[in-house]
Amino acid sequence: MRLSRYFLPVLKETPAEAQIASHRLMLRAGMIKQSSAGIYSWLPLGYRVLRNIERIVHEEQQRAGHIPMLMPTLQSADLWRESGRYDAYGPEMLRIRDRHDRDMLYGPTNEEMITDIFRSHVASYRDLPMTLYHIQWKFRDEVRPRFGVMRGREFFMKDGYNFDVSYEDAMYAYDRHMVSYLRTYERMGLKAIPMRADSGPIGGEDTHEFLVLADTGESEVFYDSAITDLTLGDRTIDYDDRASLRAVCEEWTTPYARTDETHDEEAYASIPEERRRTSRGIEVGQIFYFGTKYSEAMGAIVTNEDGERVPVHMGSHGIGVSRLVGAIIEASHDDKGIIWPEGVTPYRAGIVNLRQGDAEADAACEQLYAALGDAGLDPLYDDRDERAGAKFATMDLIGLPWRITVGPRGLAKGVVELTSRRTGESEEMSIEAAVERLREIYAGV
Amino acid sequence: MRLSRYFLPVLKETPAEAQIASHRLMLRAGMIKQSSAGIYSWLPLGYRVLRNIERIVHEEQQRAGHIPMLMPTLQSADLWRESGRYDAYGPEMLRIRDRHDRDMLYGPTNEEMITDIFRSHVASYRDLPMTLYHIQWKFRDEVRPRFGVMRGREFFMKDGYNFDVSYEDAMYAYDRHMVSYLRTYERMGLKAIPMRADSGPIGGEDTHEFLVLADTGESEVFYDSAITDLTLGDRTIDYDDRASLRAVCEEWTTPYARTDETHDEEAYASIPEERRRTSRGIEVGQIFYFGTKYSEAMGAIVTNEDGERVPVHMGSHGIGVSRLVGAIIEASHDDKGIIWPEGVTPYRAGIVNLRQGDAEADAACEQLYAALGDAGLDPLYDDRDERAGAKFATMDLIGLPWRITVGPRGLAKGVVELTSRRTGESEEMSIEAAVERLREIYAGV
Repeated sequence: MRLSRYFLPVLKETPAEAQIASHRLMLRAGMIKQSSAGIYSWLPLGYRVLRNIERIVHEEQQRAGHIPMLMPTLQSADLWRESGRYDAYGPEMLRIRDRHDRDMLYGPTNEEMITDIFRSHVASYRDLPMTLYHIQWKFRDEVRPRFGVMRGREFFMKDGYNFDVSYEDAMYAYDRHMVSYLRTYERMGLKAIPMRADSGPIGGEDTHEFLVLADTGESEVFYDSAITDLTLGDRTIDYDDRASLRAVCEEWTTPYARTDETHDEEAYASIPEERRRTSRGIEVGQIFYFGTKYSEAMGAIVTNEDGERVPVHMGSHGIGVSRLVGAIIEASHDDKGIIWPEGVTPYRAGIVNLRQGDAEADAACEQLYAALGDAGLDPLYDDRDERAGAKFATMDLIGLPWRITVGPRGLAKGVVELTSRRTGESEEMSIEAAVERLREIYAGV
Repeated sequence: MRLSRYFLPVLKETPAEAQIASHRLMLRAGMIKQSSAGIYSWLPLGYRVLRNIERIVHEEQQRAGHIPMLMPTLQSADLWRESGRYDAYGPEMLRIRDRHDRDMLYGPTNEEMITDIFRSHVASYRDLPMTLYHIQWKFRDEVRPRFGVMRGREFFMKDGYNFDVSYEDAMYAYDRHMVSYLRTYERMGLKAIPMRADSGPIGGEDTHEFLVLADTGESEVFYDSAITDLTLGDRTIDYDDRASLRAVCEEWTTPYARTDETHDEEAYASIPEERRRTSRGIEVGQIFYFGTKYSEAMGAIVTNEDGERVPVHMGSHGIGVSRLVGAIIEASHDDKGIIWPEGVTPYRAGIVNLRQGDAEADAACEQLYAALGDAGLDPLYDDRDERAGAKFATMDLIGLPWRITVGPRGLAKGVVELTSRRTGESEEMSIEAAVERLREIYAGV
């Protein structure tokens, strides 16, 4: 993309209403615009990040064998009356009446609807195990929306639901979700720690939250520093191999890690002192096993191997897709702006032309732009007639992980400059070498 | 995908409530499930088609230089009061009150919101031309929703908005949209005819609707048969070349083609008699130029080259993404089921194993499944323990354009059978040849 043809309305001033870094930076970098309290438009740059996160979530869910579909945003109140949650949910549920005076609501989650789909079509254990998921807009009418997309009212979420004939199968689904979530966050450059949590209004027996460490997190967290050293890296995960999944989950749930809601002082005190840590954390996902709560209330019954009719075991599993955009920025920024991890960056490299209008500099930038495009490394080319300082400031603000600076002085030596946004380190090399280096960096991303 | 692990709830009976073929077939093929009047869940198979259509729309819009973003589903009533449409819109607008008693609405379209974004950030002709678009869920509270996704209440739509400093530039945007829409429909296997139309509640001067010919269409259409012979084919379109775009638009708008709303008996009578056609048509898109209607009402003003402050010229351009799923089926089905065009098919080929459990047949199917996957030709493998007749009926119903049948008799000769869903013609060939043939068929799709 050429910046001269793009819509990137960066702000010079820091917006007064934004209290945390991600909110400030998303507004300043022209990623979002508030349309009303807690409701945002995703401007082109922000939209690209949102889509990248969505894509990674899709890929990792499908790798785990989970099946994508899509449920609507509006739901009938009747379904929620069946489960008993219509009255229980409180004022965060946005209640709507249509032109025929039917009670509707903007879905904050989809347990009832997916259970209804399941019970309409599935009657036998032979069709199980089954995990369906979707990524859809949700609404929670927060009394005081704030922190930008971190606590908005209309938000984009992945929610998945497993249906199993036994507790053991449901635990296998739980493990698949935990491992696929670990991989999802890792691909986004995040260290997200699974922590045993309270179940809240969904109602559950087993549940873990995934928290990203950041000073602005809403929860206080207590953990053994050993857990932050864990990484999946290049491990091959076979989602059909239950034992190996269990082993990964054991590895991540053995070191102590709890939120203030479930914190256990005694257990924490037993960690060697030098490994005890407290911090703040941002919740970016949660997995639940809740047994037969909805299947019993709503009649989601299957015949098991012995011919008995049994309610299915269910769980639900969520990742806050739009919230992750903010969480990633909270975890990765500096005074100058955002620092995108390679996995989610809106463009893979920025090209800065130091002498726009100079025939040689323009030609070199065009060559680079075409070569990066051909290599599948979407570049953002700042081809505006602006001072170098302004171009650098924009690139630093929007946070592309790699910048290539092209100017007459370098071109006289046959080189351009490749700069890491994270370290600030620069290296001179030929255009071909820069493209090759980026290709290596992005291989496997 | 292996059918044994998928969620494809096909129905044996024809649902009584479905009046038209696409609605019947989408229900029978397990593509959708109604959750309340005019509101549907997209089951896995339907979701894949919806995403394919969405992807084609994105690709063709970005090829035309239009910039993707995303606006929220809920909007503040205040914006619509500014344009005067809040009171004018009538009961099809779903009006909502949030917990703080603020008037909101579920957006049926986005002229006001995009104009608000524009006026907040753009002040000079130097930032123009600009066309922003999004693909988002919309809501129209139809009094009698029917025909499945063809006339639902919650629907998925692409809507794009151009901002230009002059009438001439806005007409260039109009032409870009017409040509990109023609290509979009052609890639979906549709013959969609642009017809001069009435502007309706958006208010416009120039506007064309795109109609797909089908007996179940809501509009009566009158046209010169010469227009149905036109095709873009492999033409290279240069969206920077205004004259060549204009020429394409002239080509498509010169033959007479009108809906009943704008029909001109006299002009129609001047077509040679053997080329006069009347039919019914399904509207699958519309483009509008509406001048300064919203920019004047909402203060979307830029400075032009002469330093004068002028309201921008705007247009809006829509494609009904979820509606297209139904329209494609209306245009392409037979007694046995759907016949997907290659461009949108949920899976590119179906594999039918005639003797599930037979070691040789199973091994051949596995080989084929892996080879198709490696070639990027997502197959759906019917690996259930079912009779051949039931497997064929399912494949015909869900309408994958190509089926490969694998059985002991063929394997003894070293062949499988490749069958076209459209023609019913079969050909025997080796597994390698079948993969190669499909690769050729899908090259360029």
